[in-house]
Amino acid sequence: MKRSDPTRVLLGRHVKKLRLQAGLSQEAFADLCGLDRTYISGIERGVRNPTLEVLAIIAAALHIDLITLFNFDGCD
Amino acid sequence: MKRSDPTRVLLGRHVKKLRLQAGLSQEAFADLCGLDRTYISGIERGVRNPTLEVLAIIAAALHIDLITLFNFDGCD
Repeated sequence: MKRSDPTRVLLGRHVKKLRLQAGLSQEAFADLCGLDRTYISGIERGVRNPTLEVLAIIAAALHIDLITLFNFDGCD
Repeated sequence: MKRSDPTRVLLGRHVKKLRLQAGLSQEAFADLCGLDRTYISGIERGVRNPTLEVLAIIAAALHIDLITLFNFDGCD
């Protein structure tokens, strides 16, 4: 499992895309999630390995379900 | 976040359902995943909080994508 595993990178790109679509800065999104901004930044850069609970928190903060969170189609 | 968070419980039930549909024992599935059987058991009981990497390993071992893994519909 390489450091920048495709799944982490794809998820990170998708979280960033969804966050921007929601008009949220990393800071505002981190506050919504109750997570540190640098952790959100790490997830978006694909260098973090978030747990199921964190993924559920991120999906809830974006008002989407986990299926939508992992629907990377259309993520370039 | 309660100990048996709904997301963990739903995911666990779904992993078990998919594993059984694939005709795999916990032991065989754990071997496929390169994970310990007791860890798989904990995930299926909803008491573990697996990381994205583990979720990707589980999906790959079941030959499904993460969207399907999180599609809990029909999980009673």
